[in-house]
Amino acid sequence: MKSACYAQCIMKATASDLRDCSIASTLSLIGEKWTILILRDLFSGISRFDDFLRRLECSPAVLSARLKTLTEAGLVRRVSYKEPGERERFEYRPTRSAVELLPVLVGLMQWGDRHLAADGTGPVEIRSRSNGQRVSAALVDEEGRAVSPSDMALIPLARPTTRQD
Amino acid sequence: MKSACYAQCIMKATASDLRDCSIASTLSLIGEKWTILILRDLFSGISRFDDFLRRLECSPAVLSARLKTLTEAGLVRRVSYKEPGERERFEYRPTRSAVELLPVLVGLMQWGDRHLAADGTGPVEIRSRSNGQRVSAALVDEEGRAVSPSDMALIPLARPTTRQD
Repeated sequence: MKSACYAQCIMKATASDLRDCSIASTLSLIGEKWTILILRDLFSGISRFDDFLRRLECSPAVLSARLKTLTEAGLVRRVSYKEPGERERFEYRPTRSAVELLPVLVGLMQWGDRHLAADGTGPVEIRSRSNGQRVSAALVDEEGRAVSPSDMALIPLARPTTRQD
Repeated sequence: MKSACYAQCIMKATASDLRDCSIASTLSLIGEKWTILILRDLFSGISRFDDFLRRLECSPAVLSARLKTLTEAGLVRRVSYKEPGERERFEYRPTRSAVELLPVLVGLMQWGDRHLAADGTGPVEIRSRSNGQRVSAALVDEEGRAVSPSDMALIPLARPTTRQD
């Protein structure tokens, strides 16, 4: 690799085989479009089947299957409720495990705002309640300091190698 | 909403319609599994068609189509090269726009490490070259301070509303 390209220097330290990496594993669970959109709606306060259906405009069968996947994966929990005179129904709520996906959701949103929205902003923005500042997904070290992409190294753990190609 | 669920308080301030949000837009561009895995491999130093093919084990037609999508979207640029005695070929390199997706990729990886890997770690980890600390995707405010999920509010921009449901 002999490039002067801006991004080429990032994480070039390893040629370890990443086929079994955790990006692929996570994608196999939540990478399907409706699944991430359900998570998005959960975090905006939607909890009932009919409300998801109205917003997502997917088929009931697809919604039902995706909610089942999310529940079995521990990302969503079902809580029963009962309106007067109606049968028992279930609400869906995000778990702590789902909360840990927020950097992914916010990262997808901010990239779309910046690169795909007509005027560089989307229909919503995320701000801190306590100080009003805009919230974004970022790369940080263990002490919370910003890490530049060019400062990042990918370190193989399973199959250590010193190869630097 | 009357829940005591940990995550329920997050971003519940709005019921604005998010169907056209930037998460959906970004997903429509890069949400397909192979596309994100191509980006992952680009950042680990892979740049040539045959190398992608060997690692991803998808069909050449799928790889070709996904690289075309990424190139047209400005996430990848093609650079020509020529081995002695062979015809001109192209390498694929991530652009600055692709670098801005790193929080998403790192977020997917760290979630999978934590929740799907057998021992809570994946085959690789990302560290800062300068201080050796582990790098993670996090939610921060404009001054880089960590923001707790419960401190996040979703503010509608396109269709302002004061509804708090």
